[in-house]
Amino acid sequence: MNQPLPDLVAGSSRPNFDLGWQVRIAGTGTYLPRRRVESAEIEARVGVPSGWACMNSGVAVRHWASPDETASWMGAQAALRACAAAGVEPESVDLIVGASGSVERAIPDGAPLLQNALGLGRSGIPSFSVHATCLSFLAAFELAAERIHGGRIRRALVVSSEIASVALDFNAPEACTLFGDGAAACVLERSGDDDTGRVHRVEWITHGADLELTTVRGCGTFRHPNAADADPLDALFRMQGRATLRRASRLAPKLLERLGLDADARRALRWVVPHQTSRAGMNIVASMGFGDGAVVDILRETGNCIAASIPMALSRGIADGRIRRGDRGMLIGTGAGLSAAAIVMTY
Amino acid sequence: MNQPLPDLVAGSSRPNFDLGWQVRIAGTGTYLPRRRVESAEIEARVGVPSGWACMNSGVAVRHWASPDETASWMGAQAALRACAAAGVEPESVDLIVGASGSVERAIPDGAPLLQNALGLGRSGIPSFSVHATCLSFLAAFELAAERIHGGRIRRALVVSSEIASVALDFNAPEACTLFGDGAAACVLERSGDDDTGRVHRVEWITHGADLELTTVRGCGTFRHPNAADADPLDALFRMQGRATLRRASRLAPKLLERLGLDADARRALRWVVPHQTSRAGMNIVASMGFGDGAVVDILRETGNCIAASIPMALSRGIADGRIRRGDRGMLIGTGAGLSAAAIVMTY
Repeated sequence: MNQPLPDLVAGSSRPNFDLGWQVRIAGTGTYLPRRRVESAEIEARVGVPSGWACMNSGVAVRHWASPDETASWMGAQAALRACAAAGVEPESVDLIVGASGSVERAIPDGAPLLQNALGLGRSGIPSFSVHATCLSFLAAFELAAERIHGGRIRRALVVSSEIASVALDFNAPEACTLFGDGAAACVLERSGDDDTGRVHRVEWITHGADLELTTVRGCGTFRHPNAADADPLDALFRMQGRATLRRASRLAPKLLERLGLDADARRALRWVVPHQTSRAGMNIVASMGFGDGAVVDILRETGNCIAASIPMALSRGIADGRIRRGDRGMLIGTGAGLSAAAIVMTY
Repeated sequence: MNQPLPDLVAGSSRPNFDLGWQVRIAGTGTYLPRRRVESAEIEARVGVPSGWACMNSGVAVRHWASPDETASWMGAQAALRACAAAGVEPESVDLIVGASGSVERAIPDGAPLLQNALGLGRSGIPSFSVHATCLSFLAAFELAAERIHGGRIRRALVVSSEIASVALDFNAPEACTLFGDGAAACVLERSGDDDTGRVHRVEWITHGADLELTTVRGCGTFRHPNAADADPLDALFRMQGRATLRRASRLAPKLLERLGLDADARRALRWVVPHQTSRAGMNIVASMGFGDGAVVDILRETGNCIAASIPMALSRGIADGRIRRGDRGMLIGTGAGLSAAAIVMTY
């Protein structure tokens, strides 16, 4: 049953290596909460001048979930849309991977909640989660694509559903104007010889030394919410914006090098779907030398939706015709950790 | 680069299917917190008769972490021991997978924290987490083994580190006497043709309809700790012990059937490492018809350590000589979700 193992491990030692996984994005779907929050509303609450948010975080509008819009419910709406776009029934998937940076509850992980919200709570479909903050979707995509490539499953559902709004600190204008809520899902399938879908390359770099740069220190076992030393501020998101940007902009060239993407290869990519980090982050992506109009940028209308941003922007790029079958492109992002990762693929 | 895809997807349709992954457990390691907690101490606190805990949960002693024993620090101790047992340097691993049911903080996930605690915070080693509550170790093991099999990496470190003690409800004697803290790690490597290590089969079943049976409803985006409707009880572990047991005992035969493990095959396994759920759970495992002495049972001395229980029992089985090179055995467990999963392998 073993495939011949390559002489070298796939990775940075082989810049022209192509994984050649026959995996396709069969469909994507998104869900945005009903409540649309204009920057003016937050600017007034925070006490910063009108226009501050657009200028600093780059976000004009984001959506915030209402109590009935739980993460699993939103994820299910996005998943149903992704399945409809793929023309498949949800019960036909062989694997459900939760891919969110936030959790709805501490236990169980979000995937069984989503499975149940999809009406598949007795289906038996294997359901578990991957957690890599804003890069959770990429880690889950990689896992699912690798399993499909290996022939163990035919079809997987990867779902990111995020509610950032409950953990915003309204004394931190930069962060509280940046984040939005929302869900996005993707159906991955084994791709036939006539299909165009291929995964070419995956790279990932983690620098745990930078873990304090973007963090929610609480809600876990360290200074547990019920502990004597608990601090409500620990339950809120903390970001050292400039330092994160500095570190991320050092990781990006390393990542591109490992991917074997020189200037020509970067220009040749037909589409680039980055994590929608912030205006400054999107500016870094814009400076990487991708082709005109290749970069999908939805930050202004959705904010940073943690792990849901990449599949949300992917969905947008497909819907607006920028990402077409047979076009080579890239999913790329950074996430708390600090990590940077990318997947080069043909849609 | 593609291996020939099998006609059928690997799974229950092929009871004699063997994945044949050339992957070996190179080393394991554990860390138990300094503070040893006898059941008598909890019995007195809870107000149940002496001997109640041993009789009901099956636990005589568990360890509880002190504040300086954070999950990432404990995980690093276990990881260093696993690397020492494997005879490898921590910096030689190509991937670090966090595999815990509890988190130290909400963001980032535990893997970058662990990477940094190992002094590898600038190494770049890809580090992210898998979350499937008590089955997190199995999901992470599967991911790492599949990636090694595919030739993309040579060596992975999988680490579970759990602090259950902060989320115990001392008004719920069954749960609060059951859980312990601790960490366990495993180094997985590509196995040479002369090595015995192989992964034969992996199966996973999730019934999200049973998600309320074992849960920590809080510490996430639903009734967030800082929200007006937050309830401190939401931050504690809730368990419907009998219902969980009933459901789990229905999933177990399905799982064994999918694994192709009939009565003879079950008796032929030289070792079985189950999740150390509870005395009643261990009794179910004992009734499954495995060989005499095959089942590794450490519940009495460590309690249920969430995802760390399986690698901890694995480590014990290797240390006491029960699990020997070339012996076929199984890792098996249930977890909140509700999920049941198993990996059949040769050590």
